[in-house]
Amino acid sequence: MSRPLHLAIVGATGAVGIELMHVLTRRGFPVSRLTLLASARSVGKTLDFQGEQIPVRELREDSFTGVDVAFFSAGASISKKFAPFAVQAGAVVVDNSSAFRMDENVPLVIPEINGDDVKLNRGIIANPNCTTAVTLMGLWPLHRAFGVNRVIAASYQAVSGTGAQAIQELRLQIEALAAGREPSWTVYPHQIAFNVLPHVDSFLDTGYTKEEMKMQNEGRRIMHHPGFLASVTCVRVPVYRAHSVAVNAQFDRPVSLDRAREVLSTFPGLRLVDNPAKNEYPLPLRVAGKDDCEIGRLRIDCALENAIAFWISGDQLLKGAALNAVQIAELI
Amino acid sequence: MSRPLHLAIVGATGAVGIELMHVLTRRGFPVSRLTLLASARSVGKTLDFQGEQIPVRELREDSFTGVDVAFFSAGASISKKFAPFAVQAGAVVVDNSSAFRMDENVPLVIPEINGDDVKLNRGIIANPNCTTAVTLMGLWPLHRAFGVNRVIAASYQAVSGTGAQAIQELRLQIEALAAGREPSWTVYPHQIAFNVLPHVDSFLDTGYTKEEMKMQNEGRRIMHHPGFLASVTCVRVPVYRAHSVAVNAQFDRPVSLDRAREVLSTFPGLRLVDNPAKNEYPLPLRVAGKDDCEIGRLRIDCALENAIAFWISGDQLLKGAALNAVQIAELI
Repeated sequence: MSRPLHLAIVGATGAVGIELMHVLTRRGFPVSRLTLLASARSVGKTLDFQGEQIPVRELREDSFTGVDVAFFSAGASISKKFAPFAVQAGAVVVDNSSAFRMDENVPLVIPEINGDDVKLNRGIIANPNCTTAVTLMGLWPLHRAFGVNRVIAASYQAVSGTGAQAIQELRLQIEALAAGREPSWTVYPHQIAFNVLPHVDSFLDTGYTKEEMKMQNEGRRIMHHPGFLASVTCVRVPVYRAHSVAVNAQFDRPVSLDRAREVLSTFPGLRLVDNPAKNEYPLPLRVAGKDDCEIGRLRIDCALENAIAFWISGDQLLKGAALNAVQIAELI
Repeated sequence: MSRPLHLAIVGATGAVGIELMHVLTRRGFPVSRLTLLASARSVGKTLDFQGEQIPVRELREDSFTGVDVAFFSAGASISKKFAPFAVQAGAVVVDNSSAFRMDENVPLVIPEINGDDVKLNRGIIANPNCTTAVTLMGLWPLHRAFGVNRVIAASYQAVSGTGAQAIQELRLQIEALAAGREPSWTVYPHQIAFNVLPHVDSFLDTGYTKEEMKMQNEGRRIMHHPGFLASVTCVRVPVYRAHSVAVNAQFDRPVSLDRAREVLSTFPGLRLVDNPAKNEYPLPLRVAGKDDCEIGRLRIDCALENAIAFWISGDQLLKGAALNAVQIAELI
């Protein structure tokens, strides 16, 4: 970490790309040079990084010469196509897309949970799905204490998870409705303002969405727990940038709230906010822009044996994406 | 049902009160006279009912002379205090509050499920909690087919459930934010615009809220199923008037989606909307103002044995309150 590094951001103009630059600055990441890459239509733009105007360049196969670490955040197909060129050029890729998350040769890492897996990388390290990352920040300490076997969860996902265009779509719908005009949409299949959509990512034959299966699939890899089960309903809500998840987690061993509070309150990156008498519980609006996830509404589950119900909120662009990616880069 | 009845609405100026008048008109309920009752501060207002301007009168102990059916929708304390006077005056009370829902002498009724229980009334019939009513509309047909034993659920509840002031609070917060002003709040303990609040009703010592326990408590009575278990997280979302619930239901007998679709698509008051390939699933925005609840996102649960996951949306002011109340009155 002492030698300043040449970094590249693929998808620099996107919501996560912008956030990556903020996180690098805020955490004092040693940057010798920053290369910003995007599609051809963003060429000509410049973005401010620590007072310097950096031009956005077109992503090409030969974009990675001299790059030490390349952050990819431009979707799975871009990652699949261009990450191998970055690796070939000698860069370590930290990929925010779903492209390599299930690849056995690619570590899938939340630094607080399985940071050591970074060492196993062969050039690519995958950043987990945002809802999975936020949920596991609360689930992992409980798993270590009690041994989780299954999770039932329902998410309340912010539009930032879809990207900058979705943030704009919600904003424009609100403006249209306020002005008495009909709102329109192109990013989501339905109006998102004053609505909730039980639809995140594409549908599988089982009726689950791809997004809904990520908690089980990625959770198994991150927690090194191949028998872990998770049944999730992923729902988009008209919130700008932090995700929340209602979780019912069942464990192998008897649970206690005292022990749960102890392990949660000492876990790095997590804040226990659980004082219902004072209306204190995690709120997506409050965690927006914050590194730490908040966990609360802890209770012994009344319908499942050895189970705890909780509510967790985390900034989708930070722990769900940019922060986790930079934390991974710090481990390299 | 042939003789026109003298009806009273307690809480006439509230969100449910207004909706009751719409439902009575829409369903052609035979009304000989309508008495509108509210607190002293609403006296002087008049409300339109079928073209007639009806004055709002102050709710008093002697307000119920000659009334056949009194709809109460002004909170539990008002119901507890005044419903006995209505019964004493010879009226049948249909109570929308939580005051009598757990009273063994008071039937708690969803007409499509346990309409016959209306006959057991001793002057008061309770209308169930809105989230419970919407959820049970989907759960009951599945219970009859497979025998439910437990439910894990998370709700997405509209502000209409809190009342007319909460609808106004969301609207004003949106306006303030659009104008660049700081939003304010008095109804909820936190901003509801662009936020979700894991807090509906007051907290119990267990960490659950009262609202969260209603599904188990009321579900047991309505389904005549004393062993029914339900662990719920109730969440307020910035939606105006329809509730949605993500439900994972476990059954005694093996489940099949074909059989589930069959029993759900033929159940009165329910529409099966489950064509993910065409982005068709229940949406709170679409069910707003509609009598029928919508159910969809049906799938065999991947983490619980003999279980089905589904998503259900229903108009909180209709099936969750006014419609169900009028349906009860129709059975009297």
